[in-house]
Amino acid sequence: MKLKRAIISCYDKKGLIELGAALQKQDVEILSTAGTLKHLQENNIAVKDISEISERGEAFGGRIKSLSFGVSAGLLFDRVSDAQEAQNLGVKSIDLVVCNLYPFDQASQDDFVRWIDIGGPTMLRAASKNYEFVSVLCDPKNYANFIEELEKSGGTISLETRKHLMRKTFSYMADYDCQISTALDKWAGEDSLRLSFSNKKPLRYGENSHQKADYFESTSQLFMKNMQVHQGKELSYNNLLDVQAAFDAIRDLKNQACCIIKHCTPCGIAQSSSQVEAFKLAWASDPVSAFGSIVVFSSVVDKQTVEQFSKKFVEIIAAPSFSHEALELLRTQKNLRVITYDPNIKASKQEIRLIDGGALVQERDLESASKREWVTDCHPALDAGSSAGSRLVGRDDKQARGDNMGLSDSLLEFGLHCIRPMKSNAIALVRTLENGSFQLLGMGCGQPNRIHSVKLAVERATDGLTAEYQGHPSEQDAYIQHHLSRAVLISEAFFPFSDSIDVCHEAGIKTIVQPGGSMRDKQVIEACNQHGISMMFVGNRHFKH
Amino acid sequence: MKLKRAIISCYDKKGLIELGAALQKQDVEILSTAGTLKHLQENNIAVKDISEISERGEAFGGRIKSLSFGVSAGLLFDRVSDAQEAQNLGVKSIDLVVCNLYPFDQASQDDFVRWIDIGGPTMLRAASKNYEFVSVLCDPKNYANFIEELEKSGGTISLETRKHLMRKTFSYMADYDCQISTALDKWAGEDSLRLSFSNKKPLRYGENSHQKADYFESTSQLFMKNMQVHQGKELSYNNLLDVQAAFDAIRDLKNQACCIIKHCTPCGIAQSSSQVEAFKLAWASDPVSAFGSIVVFSSVVDKQTVEQFSKKFVEIIAAPSFSHEALELLRTQKNLRVITYDPNIKASKQEIRLIDGGALVQERDLESASKREWVTDCHPALDAGSSAGSRLVGRDDKQARGDNMGLSDSLLEFGLHCIRPMKSNAIALVRTLENGSFQLLGMGCGQPNRIHSVKLAVERATDGLTAEYQGHPSEQDAYIQHHLSRAVLISEAFFPFSDSIDVCHEAGIKTIVQPGGSMRDKQVIEACNQHGISMMFVGNRHFKH
Repeated sequence: MKLKRAIISCYDKKGLIELGAALQKQDVEILSTAGTLKHLQENNIAVKDISEISERGEAFGGRIKSLSFGVSAGLLFDRVSDAQEAQNLGVKSIDLVVCNLYPFDQASQDDFVRWIDIGGPTMLRAASKNYEFVSVLCDPKNYANFIEELEKSGGTISLETRKHLMRKTFSYMADYDCQISTALDKWAGEDSLRLSFSNKKPLRYGENSHQKADYFESTSQLFMKNMQVHQGKELSYNNLLDVQAAFDAIRDLKNQACCIIKHCTPCGIAQSSSQVEAFKLAWASDPVSAFGSIVVFSSVVDKQTVEQFSKKFVEIIAAPSFSHEALELLRTQKNLRVITYDPNIKASKQEIRLIDGGALVQERDLESASKREWVTDCHPALDAGSSAGSRLVGRDDKQARGDNMGLSDSLLEFGLHCIRPMKSNAIALVRTLENGSFQLLGMGCGQPNRIHSVKLAVERATDGLTAEYQGHPSEQDAYIQHHLSRAVLISEAFFPFSDSIDVCHEAGIKTIVQPGGSMRDKQVIEACNQHGISMMFVGNRHFKH
Repeated sequence: MKLKRAIISCYDKKGLIELGAALQKQDVEILSTAGTLKHLQENNIAVKDISEISERGEAFGGRIKSLSFGVSAGLLFDRVSDAQEAQNLGVKSIDLVVCNLYPFDQASQDDFVRWIDIGGPTMLRAASKNYEFVSVLCDPKNYANFIEELEKSGGTISLETRKHLMRKTFSYMADYDCQISTALDKWAGEDSLRLSFSNKKPLRYGENSHQKADYFESTSQLFMKNMQVHQGKELSYNNLLDVQAAFDAIRDLKNQACCIIKHCTPCGIAQSSSQVEAFKLAWASDPVSAFGSIVVFSSVVDKQTVEQFSKKFVEIIAAPSFSHEALELLRTQKNLRVITYDPNIKASKQEIRLIDGGALVQERDLESASKREWVTDCHPALDAGSSAGSRLVGRDDKQARGDNMGLSDSLLEFGLHCIRPMKSNAIALVRTLENGSFQLLGMGCGQPNRIHSVKLAVERATDGLTAEYQGHPSEQDAYIQHHLSRAVLISEAFFPFSDSIDVCHEAGIKTIVQPGGSMRDKQVIEACNQHGISMMFVGNRHFKH
């Protein structure tokens, strides 16, 4: 059926001239309202006032434009079974509605309700309901294809297209009403939360092969959307979770940073002026865990770095981009997935977790230390000869920064970056190398108690230092001792007991950073004093469950 | 302003007689359509056909009932500034809309679109927009209060009520359009996902005190909704995550089961014919981790069990219910939170996790073993004298069930229950006690490699057995050895290398259960054969990231 009559009534006038001209070319009668009418007329499109069909003109200062029996009936009647009745009633068919609505993000609370459209949604919904005979356009993005089909067919639109446009319009209406409802709830102080995802993509399976799984895309423009898979198999459910963890871990780490992720857990992290060095150090954090891992870089990956991958089993390598030579070399490893991401896209500010019957919404944990206070007798501020007895070390007090103990501001920042993405209870042992690079030396996390995480961090660090040592076996222990004594142990939450301090002492750890705040802080500090350990309180806790 | 005129047009006729009578008492003129008109007339409510206002009657077999200039204008005009224009146009004000729509869950795909309402939503939305003058009722649940207010005030409705009803109606419209959109997308094979939460409840803070957080309730009736907090402080963000983990861990564990959760990780699990015994065994799994934990029971908790809590620091105790004496005793521990839950409510079948830019949806992992195959030379089926060489042990082959190795069907089920809620990589050491109770003896999880989880499980089990041993110190090691040799080690995923088997051998473990499926299965089995270890493949993996 050839289109005979169209209503155009749009807030966003984009593309209407081209669309109007194309309709005119097919001899479609165009009816319109207020601003749209004027816009079309000024651009030499022949257009009539909607009152020709609505029988009534605009009323109440524009509150009513299209709402009428004539327009509703013209959209809704069945062109076959209701044809005779329509003729008797003098109802003219309307075969196309072009309509979009006021975007609320520009409205203030005061005039929000005034901008809610009643007539537009009625036309959009009526046209969609009668998609078997009527076309509906709610998005200027669809005009081009619509015009093409119209011209090719000589004035008709296929059922398939009408069905597609109908589905799109009901989705648009759902989004519109959700926006109204959440805004009203917010203003009433009884916030609601409506999340919308589309474009389902079935995944091979979920966390395990007996679990069916799908991925849905969010409508907002976020991190994952900006991810591109350059080679290798499609990402699995677990890959997607791991990649998210990798992006969370690398985010905000500047320079040449490298993180290695396994089962959503960072097991290797390093920062250096050289990318190859950063990768080598991150890998050395825990080579056993790094097997089958995801490696993510903060900067463009070059060929020299990719060469390091040759004999290592890695599932995914991700970076903002890769040099041409690097990509070429990667092509030889067919099973390795290569991903690029946009490092400029910030994480969403909110973190949403669904539990049975509800949603937990919290701000992301992006905080650093809220204070830097040495709480032990022995501490770098004293050693460095700053005013005796002062336990407060200012951010800019360079003399007192404690470089002599290996705890510079930048190492502390690096350590907090390491610990934040780890599951509680988390412990990180970090160090500064002679060339200024930072390395996660060992970590323990995901444990229901803190002491096991301390033991794990020490064990991993000892393994790493053992592998690193090249000298005579008789001096290996001394080497390990020396490096552990210069490393910094960071705990993401307070020590509930002093038992972990004893483990640190046995391992030869000399510097500990923790938030503080336990009812047994005094005992913990006392244990440090007994063992000659320096301890800094940093205030902020970094639980991650 | 006194209500003068109302439109009633409802799919769900519940409560309409009472409402109609109340309106009639206040001399409100009632207009109605089709079925509702008939329903009211039959019940002696004075009611007129809507055509008195719409100027046109029903058309096109009911496709058009209320859609008209008259009805829209009567709802939308500003009673102050548009009053003169309304009079000139002969528009009569409509002060109340009572309308509800066809519930789609009863529609089939074929006639779904036919049931989409156009006129109803137009009236509901128009009335809501003009809430400063118009009342709107979309839910029979609101009739009673509405009638009460009407009678008290002698026929008027307050702005506050109108505003509340407006907000409720826009939420109803959003739900309605979301339902249409997701159903249409599903039928087009391009599924979308729309989630809706309301009733925001601010939480003290998120995972850490520097993170703002809120809880939103889902509209569906699920586990958490059926939870009641009987005493103690309100649940925190981390508490809610932990309680969810506790419910997940206890779910489907029958008899007297007890789980102990810390940081979302089960660190103690036991099942027994006695509740006190189950609690003692679960606590003994890892008393260090159990400090400050959440303890959840599968059955009514009695006084005897609560007495066990006296000197233990526990954050939350949860159970289907508590005996009167138990609750009374618990009241003396003011800081302990006491929670009841409904054990009959099943978990939702889907698990949804949000990542930046998308949602991951998977079936829950509720599967048990998909096979039970002994793969080593040494295995209980052989020892029990069943047909030599057969490595397949049937579910009902009692002789071959391997009870002699401590691996009964029920212990295997218990072990899989233990391992499923643990974060990867997860290892559980489980055992059957002489009285038939089952106990998680030690666990390792949340590790980026399997070997560390094996070591952690062995370490925790050794600690537990050491604490349990009451005899002469000289025989302690033999005691531990004996019990480890009778315990069963369950790995939630395959062993990528044989290194973990060597750790098991050193610890004296004799029975290992794992899914199988590694490219190095052969080496792993060989290592077991060398060490005289029995190994069963169970097929299903249980990753949890």
